[in-house]
Amino acid sequence: MSDPNRIRALYDRYPDLVTKGDVEAIVALYAEDATIEDPIGSPLHRGIEAVRAFYQNAVKAGVLMRRSGPVRVAGSEAATPLIVLVGPEDQRQVIDVISVMRFRDDGKIASMRAYWSPDAIRPATEAELAG
Amino acid sequence: MSDPNRIRALYDRYPDLVTKGDVEAIVALYAEDATIEDPIGSPLHRGIEAVRAFYQNAVKAGVLMRRSGPVRVAGSEAATPLIVLVGPEDQRQVIDVISVMRFRDDGKIASMRAYWSPDAIRPATEAELAG
Repeated sequence: MSDPNRIRALYDRYPDLVTKGDVEAIVALYAEDATIEDPIGSPLHRGIEAVRAFYQNAVKAGVLMRRSGPVRVAGSEAATPLIVLVGPEDQRQVIDVISVMRFRDDGKIASMRAYWSPDAIRPATEAELAG
Repeated sequence: MSDPNRIRALYDRYPDLVTKGDVEAIVALYAEDATIEDPIGSPLHRGIEAVRAFYQNAVKAGVLMRRSGPVRVAGSEAATPLIVLVGPEDQRQVIDVISVMRFRDDGKIASMRAYWSPDAIRPATEAELAG
């Protein structure tokens, strides 16, 4: 897939699907043999069942996700800044993430890798809480 | 190198060095056998001489670079949103970039890959022009 607008459209939908907890719609974006490394340096989740389990856990934890800057497309890859809100509603913490995806020719996600570090988790700002 | 603060400090200096045009200070951040892929999908620049030539060309073109969001560190890798201002002063254009670096144990940059796409180049905003 080399259409930048198709990649941008996917990255516009993806954070909303995570926030809504629509695991099956997220899984449908991924290839059968896709891999997830989140955060980078942690063990790889390999294959569509591992992808499903990964997002089921995220949804169970009640994470919210929003895009926090433009999608940067390069060929069949893309990188996007995201914020992930975690924790109880009155004590939301923010993880600043950059998510990097590689796409197959058919438009499915071949791999997702997430750049973030636990030491940088921070309280949410008023604007971030308001959405 | 696994000290997130050391990586963040490097990514704080790097855009300023590019803007100042201090090619030798930039080259000193890179390992001898470093590679650059900018944008991703274009031919690799391999080795310190190719790294020097790459930044000499950028400086000759008069590019300005600023960080536009927090550095995301993950193990010995990091991703950072940047804006790159190009073109004549009265007609500045902005390239939204995400730069991804991998570091060696000694703190030198082993590789830099840049996510951006020519179709997303846009006019600079007033705030971006003001710096």
